[in-house]
Amino acid sequence: MSLSTRIIGIDPGLRRCGWGVIESRGSRLSYVASGTLTPPIDGSLAERLAALFAGLGAVLDQFAPDEAAVEETFVNAGPRSALILGQARGVVLLTPAARGLPVAEYAANLVKKSVVGTGHAAKGQVALMVKTLMPAADFKGPDAADALAIAICHAHHRVSNQRLKAMA
Amino acid sequence: MSLSTRIIGIDPGLRRCGWGVIESRGSRLSYVASGTLTPPIDGSLAERLAALFAGLGAVLDQFAPDEAAVEETFVNAGPRSALILGQARGVVLLTPAARGLPVAEYAANLVKKSVVGTGHAAKGQVALMVKTLMPAADFKGPDAADALAIAICHAHHRVSNQRLKAMA
Repeated sequence: MSLSTRIIGIDPGLRRCGWGVIESRGSRLSYVASGTLTPPIDGSLAERLAALFAGLGAVLDQFAPDEAAVEETFVNAGPRSALILGQARGVVLLTPAARGLPVAEYAANLVKKSVVGTGHAAKGQVALMVKTLMPAADFKGPDAADALAIAICHAHHRVSNQRLKAMA
Repeated sequence: MSLSTRIIGIDPGLRRCGWGVIESRGSRLSYVASGTLTPPIDGSLAERLAALFAGLGAVLDQFAPDEAAVEETFVNAGPRSALILGQARGVVLLTPAARGLPVAEYAANLVKKSVVGTGHAAKGQVALMVKTLMPAADFKGPDAADALAIAICHAHHRVSNQRLKAMA
């Protein structure tokens, strides 16, 4: 397949939401852009979620990805934290889906395995491998690096997922 | 205050999301409409959240409420259930906030106390009191009755909340 696909990876969070856009063309990956959304922490929960929705929507409008990938949350905290994270995650899944983009989900250890080669990589290793795979990647902070790793994971898996779906 | 305010109450859920619209004019309440959204359960989580967003958005467009009220979730289930509920709740809080509506949150026992007089009312009692307070209320099922109770709770509390805010 020679057509190129633009992918956005998103690392959900209400205080810090990382995003990274890449182009996938066959086995070649190239960096497009990345950043971290930090919705204002004052205001009601609903207002903060609306700010996240607007910020992520502006990124989607600017970089026009074809597909989105979001990290599946591994819940090891209490139910109260899970509820708060879930609220931000719901908005992060919705924003691309409401624009008609397909949204894939990947477990955190699968993302690490795809990028670093092991499911138990430290944050620093993920950033290092993202930079190795895409030397032009100009990201700031671990949230944007994680988001790029999610996009890379999706680039690796999307073709085999499509084949599996076609066989089903 | 003689101006009337239109309020939507929402009982969040991914499979069943109740909504109820009332008019509050001074101490008089009147029924406008209610229903239960049931987004299709097939499709990806992102697609289901997008269906909830579209369905709730259509209700807001049709009935044009001035303010929204959502039940605060009491988390007594495990973190996995809390995450799932949180995702639907995030979309429910966002949808009116993205249209610029103020969104208030009320704990479930406060809603019951406002409507029934005790925080430990059964579902059937809530529906009965909603019907007593607004005889014209033509709701189907407990989710719509709960949503109307949330709207009634907000009608009772909004004026005192505004006074508290003005004093702060």
